[in-house]
Amino acid sequence: MIVTIIGPGLIGGSIAIGLRESGFSARVIGVDNNPAHAARAVELGLVDEVRPLEEAVQKSRIIVVATPVDSLTKLLPHILNIIDNEKVVLDVGSTKTPILAAVENHPNRARFVATHPMAGTEYSGPEAAIPGLFAGKCCVFTDIEKSAPDALGICHQLYAALGMRITTLGGNDHDLHVAYVSHISHIASFALALTVLEKEKDEDRIFELASGGFQSTVRLAKSSPETWIPIFRQNRDNVLDVLDEFINTVSRFRTLLIKKDFGKFEELIRHANDIRRIIDPK
Amino acid sequence: MIVTIIGPGLIGGSIAIGLRESGFSARVIGVDNNPAHAARAVELGLVDEVRPLEEAVQKSRIIVVATPVDSLTKLLPHILNIIDNEKVVLDVGSTKTPILAAVENHPNRARFVATHPMAGTEYSGPEAAIPGLFAGKCCVFTDIEKSAPDALGICHQLYAALGMRITTLGGNDHDLHVAYVSHISHIASFALALTVLEKEKDEDRIFELASGGFQSTVRLAKSSPETWIPIFRQNRDNVLDVLDEFINTVSRFRTLLIKKDFGKFEELIRHANDIRRIIDPK
Repeated sequence: MIVTIIGPGLIGGSIAIGLRESGFSARVIGVDNNPAHAARAVELGLVDEVRPLEEAVQKSRIIVVATPVDSLTKLLPHILNIIDNEKVVLDVGSTKTPILAAVENHPNRARFVATHPMAGTEYSGPEAAIPGLFAGKCCVFTDIEKSAPDALGICHQLYAALGMRITTLGGNDHDLHVAYVSHISHIASFALALTVLEKEKDEDRIFELASGGFQSTVRLAKSSPETWIPIFRQNRDNVLDVLDEFINTVSRFRTLLIKKDFGKFEELIRHANDIRRIIDPK
Repeated sequence: MIVTIIGPGLIGGSIAIGLRESGFSARVIGVDNNPAHAARAVELGLVDEVRPLEEAVQKSRIIVVATPVDSLTKLLPHILNIIDNEKVVLDVGSTKTPILAAVENHPNRARFVATHPMAGTEYSGPEAAIPGLFAGKCCVFTDIEKSAPDALGICHQLYAALGMRITTLGGNDHDLHVAYVSHISHIASFALALTVLEKEKDEDRIFELASGGFQSTVRLAKSSPETWIPIFRQNRDNVLDVLDEFINTVSRFRTLLIKKDFGKFEELIRHANDIRRIIDPK
């Protein structure tokens, strides 16, 4: 099947690699409004060719829209305007409510499947695309009752070809869940990086002792604002709620340190250790 | 050279592995007041034998004290009481000021070298010991003017055998720096884990979408209270200062979200991206 990837960057480019390697797609067309990115996607072999949006859509059975989430709300209605009933359109955005709202009453709504493959790195652009990014990870389909069964079936096959397991959620639940397990991690990481970078102004050797633990907590602070500002903008209300809870929890540790209540501090650590059940299930 | 490791867990056990593999030490003796840990250290081949403290010290040229930092302040003066002028004692603790104070006026102070190999994982105990833990990482020697040159030379050789580069700092500077690049990361990680675990009570599927980004930021939340409570107790004042700065920084993100000031939010992210210079220097 011919697939168009709009935005062959970290996510879109890694999907292109996976669809070609698995044999799911013999031909992948790229669309990118950044000419340097478009040229790089061809050079790197992520896509076979780059074409203007309308031509690419017309030639393809499947259109994967992998742009930042703010442009999704504009692009998706336009793409649904120009497709026929055989084609399937899917997005891969990290927020869902505004995207689902943007296409809610579109006559071709059933040809669209709202998906979120939960995988990524702190890098972006075509150079960031890598093989195997999605293997064993979870992909969320949201509000599936609005999509046609054949469109869902094709998306299912596509993500299975990438090695993903698929789950379903309502769009609102999705946005709340990702605020907890993804968006807040990024803010914590940005804040940690800024705290130490600020100290570097007085203590220029401060990073000399940084080891693996520091690196893993600030890794996400390398993430690009081009990707993340639109996400925080669209998921602002959920992120604010989680941020309040996070600040309260950090403040509890602070209060216990002030009071030297290390008994209660230890209880909190033991409770936090329960995260092993989630990320270390063996 | 015969080396005694007091506390052959994550750090002590990994040192034992490295000293044997590099040929630095033909014989490593373990000391552990937990009989199960002692037996496991022998079974795993971390140490050749386990002996009572006094006997092990008497048989060894080098004594590495790798216990939690609260017991270091009691153990170190005792060990310095029973050594002769040929032996070298070193600790590997994550805090330095209280440890340096505990031996400050000891007649054998010059035989002691205060070191902190900056490496580790979120695991603990003999099972956590791994080869190559220290390779390419940084080891800090603190207050070296209080140690005899020959003792410093031996410690230098020991850490070189583990593949570490060595730097020096005053004890107070060390404790401030590790508050920034290690201790605060742990609190952020514990708080993040607790925030999501709390939400799990209402939303039992909350972790279903957790991916690599979440895992890397909460990895440290698996760290044991046995190691970390004594560290937070000893470095409380520095950790409190850094915690205040971290809370202020997270709160800035919160205020910008409330005000929908995404221009300023983007500036903060771009500034945080400067962390690439530190952890991604290519």
